[in-house]
Amino acid sequence: MAKHDPHLDLLFHALSDPTRRQMLNRLAQGPAPVSELAAPTGLRLPTVLRHLSVLEEAGLVTTQKDGRVRSCAFQPQAMAPMRDWLEEQRAIWEARLDRLDDYVTKLMKERNNGS
Amino acid sequence: MAKHDPHLDLLFHALSDPTRRQMLNRLAQGPAPVSELAAPTGLRLPTVLRHLSVLEEAGLVTTQKDGRVRSCAFQPQAMAPMRDWLEEQRAIWEARLDRLDDYVTKLMKERNNGS
Repeated sequence: MAKHDPHLDLLFHALSDPTRRQMLNRLAQGPAPVSELAAPTGLRLPTVLRHLSVLEEAGLVTTQKDGRVRSCAFQPQAMAPMRDWLEEQRAIWEARLDRLDDYVTKLMKERNNGS
Repeated sequence: MAKHDPHLDLLFHALSDPTRRQMLNRLAQGPAPVSELAAPTGLRLPTVLRHLSVLEEAGLVTTQKDGRVRSCAFQPQAMAPMRDWLEEQRAIWEARLDRLDDYVTKLMKERNNGS
């Protein structure tokens, strides 16, 4: 059984909210100040900042103060552990299908030899 | 901006918990009764059933009553929207890098022509 990776908790949790996914989608197009991230959400700034801190905690976004403006940047490499986990489950599943396939082939061979 | 997909909320939320990821990891190896899913978690049955219902709600697991035993099965196709969303963000990001690359190439050409 895979060990518990608390970073995966943070990553999947960060992406479970539509506002945070929307913010990340915007940042995938390039860095943006907080005000530009906030505008399309229609949410108040404190709420947007809370969402931003969840994205930061997961490592998906970094922010940088530039004078009076806080600029946000997407960190695409942070998505890798999620993709790896999803691929791992798929690989386990496909290995299972391969084993089933081998088993059925063996059964059919045995039946053909016995008949 | 991508439209809000409530199914993605459920999927990412379902995977944000280590017990649920552990249960899914077990089911990727093949169907199992609830008791077998519960054993390695060390949690009480009602807690395990609550986790199971979160996985069911996200479409990641289906359960089936077989006499007195409830059997659980992984539904790997349910992971697709998550993988698609992650890939979409990566594609947006990579398109941005390509545009930056084109821009730098253009600037360098202009500088060389001007010199």
